[in-house]
Amino acid sequence: MRDVYIVGAGQSAYGAFPDESYRSLFAGAFEEAMASAGGVEAADIDEAVVGSLGVGGRQLGLSGPAVTEHIGLHGVPCSRIENACAASGYAVRQAVQAVKSGMADVVLAGGYEVMTDMSGDVGKYWLGVSGETEWERLTGTTFAGVYAQMASAYVDAYDASPDHFSKVAVKNHANGAKNPKAHLGFECSLDDARNAPVVADPLNLYHCCPTSDGAAAVLVASEDVASACDDAVRVAGVGAASDHVGLFQRDSYTTIESSERAATAAYEMAGLGPDDVDFAEVHDCFAIAELLAYEDLGFCERGHAPELVDSGATELGGDLPVNPSGGLKSKGHPIGATGAGQVVEAFKQLTGRAGDRQVAGANVGLTHNVGGSGGAAVVHVLEGGAL
Amino acid sequence: MRDVYIVGAGQSAYGAFPDESYRSLFAGAFEEAMASAGGVEAADIDEAVVGSLGVGGRQLGLSGPAVTEHIGLHGVPCSRIENACAASGYAVRQAVQAVKSGMADVVLAGGYEVMTDMSGDVGKYWLGVSGETEWERLTGTTFAGVYAQMASAYVDAYDASPDHFSKVAVKNHANGAKNPKAHLGFECSLDDARNAPVVADPLNLYHCCPTSDGAAAVLVASEDVASACDDAVRVAGVGAASDHVGLFQRDSYTTIESSERAATAAYEMAGLGPDDVDFAEVHDCFAIAELLAYEDLGFCERGHAPELVDSGATELGGDLPVNPSGGLKSKGHPIGATGAGQVVEAFKQLTGRAGDRQVAGANVGLTHNVGGSGGAAVVHVLEGGAL
Repeated sequence: MRDVYIVGAGQSAYGAFPDESYRSLFAGAFEEAMASAGGVEAADIDEAVVGSLGVGGRQLGLSGPAVTEHIGLHGVPCSRIENACAASGYAVRQAVQAVKSGMADVVLAGGYEVMTDMSGDVGKYWLGVSGETEWERLTGTTFAGVYAQMASAYVDAYDASPDHFSKVAVKNHANGAKNPKAHLGFECSLDDARNAPVVADPLNLYHCCPTSDGAAAVLVASEDVASACDDAVRVAGVGAASDHVGLFQRDSYTTIESSERAATAAYEMAGLGPDDVDFAEVHDCFAIAELLAYEDLGFCERGHAPELVDSGATELGGDLPVNPSGGLKSKGHPIGATGAGQVVEAFKQLTGRAGDRQVAGANVGLTHNVGGSGGAAVVHVLEGGAL
Repeated sequence: MRDVYIVGAGQSAYGAFPDESYRSLFAGAFEEAMASAGGVEAADIDEAVVGSLGVGGRQLGLSGPAVTEHIGLHGVPCSRIENACAASGYAVRQAVQAVKSGMADVVLAGGYEVMTDMSGDVGKYWLGVSGETEWERLTGTTFAGVYAQMASAYVDAYDASPDHFSKVAVKNHANGAKNPKAHLGFECSLDDARNAPVVADPLNLYHCCPTSDGAAAVLVASEDVASACDDAVRVAGVGAASDHVGLFQRDSYTTIESSERAATAAYEMAGLGPDDVDFAEVHDCFAIAELLAYEDLGFCERGHAPELVDSGATELGGDLPVNPSGGLKSKGHPIGATGAGQVVEAFKQLTGRAGDRQVAGANVGLTHNVGGSGGAAVVHVLEGGAL
């Protein structure tokens, strides 16, 4: 297998942008990715793979070729991946396979979503699309309701309280306030987070990510290409796994098994383990998801995530900063863009471009992207300074 | 790059199946694929990639993991590709890349669609989803209307008449009548095809494929795995390309440029040319599309497709049988299943399993799958008896 590198990465701002389309947002992300990639031209791109949930109207089929033609990549093969909220994490993985296969030297991977163009309360159904159909969505379970069941089970099983969810929110908002691309780029106090209105008990508004518009783009390249580039981050490991789509079909509500299996595979491929990770971007669609991620990714033992939160280790100045970008909670969650957007943050961190939120001495970063409540998961282990 | 093989393939019947779901249809296809693959067990499957347009209700997000869990492949990475009608042609291509990358040894590629569960005339909007949004779909252009513009331009430009479209229908129905899995598995006469009601002038009912329910599944494997299997068909070449999604943006209405580029790439990778092809499964969503395919795939010069039809060369007993399965016209067109279903037919032909419609001496087969009116295309060149 040949080695594969990320040689450029960019994203649009995440937020509510009534004047933008999925195409204009992706064009912005692509422009930033190209500008960051000294040594690669648009003409070098052999193919593209993009992620989007894509039920928000507009181009219902073939939106992949529609975005690539818009950014001037006329004719290159392009397909769209849908794996709910893990769409573009899987797109990056597919790009890695395309380069490793030898069929391509430079692949554009990315994603986009426009979520804020729905009137009234239609938006809340949006995320429900990622839930199981017959026994979750059609029975009226919202997507926050699915994660609320996991949160309740976790609080019952371990020494945890909703305050731990609030502390995750405070941490991620503190990071997002340092990220000019964040959707909710403001700090919040523990009292703000504690006293927010309930969404799905025990989760309140500050325990839930926003729905966002946005796009992200990543340039994945072979070693030959990367060696001629200004910066290159090695894709040391990739892992992916699926699970029962419906929460009710799983053995445990306090772990996301697909995350654990994806991480195990990614660590094994990288020859690295959780102790080697300097920072991580994890899928905190709801605050409980970040706690589960700590455990599923091996950052602590089962049931010890609350301790890890309390210790401050996952804050920006801590031993293992998690979600330095602000995470889905503060940076935002434009579904199809999220997984690639995590890789964008990792690229910035590993090439010293993360500004005020730079993790000091970052050499190994991990990204963790979940589809639905765990029906799909994908993990990348990325290594800086490798060329 | 390591060599990649198809070691098993199966499909559900195509048709209108109110008692079936996307999951049960896919389970049937998977079962046939496994039964055909002496030497591979379900436990050997490393990952799965499935194609579906997927706007027909049911599992709106994460239907990939939903079908793999249903067939017992719990936990394996699975993603869904959407590239309109080329979804599962691209899924097979992605599986080829996954095996070539060395990250997987056996990959399940396939697709599914349930299209006949809509009341009244909603079905006609279904295919329109694959058209361009602002200037085609939302202005009221049906998908048949898009291809009717191509058909009109072709008849204007060359020595062609609607009778050539009718002859394609007669040929494909004659083949489909020999295929027990065909949706419209009956013969039609030239008069039947000539005198059918107009759908979008100059295309009449017999010049249009049906909307179908169905699924298809293909097992893609490394050479090591294939060498231990009963039968193996080599993936000699793969090519893909995209184009402007909207027909009005293209230079020509009488060629599908993405098909031509995909074929050129596939032939180059295979070290073969159109003269080496013994039979082809081409994307005849409308009869004009089969004529364009003859030219775009290099089976004849520009403007000479009508002659090729008149000669009988593309009939089952001819020099270059096209759509021995019955094609989209007679076998059916369950969107997400179609591309993988073409590979299923090629596998059957190249391993002597095609029954009454067997192409004598078939050694090289080509499959050609188009998304929308050509926004995406993917071509596989497959070689029998290679191991």
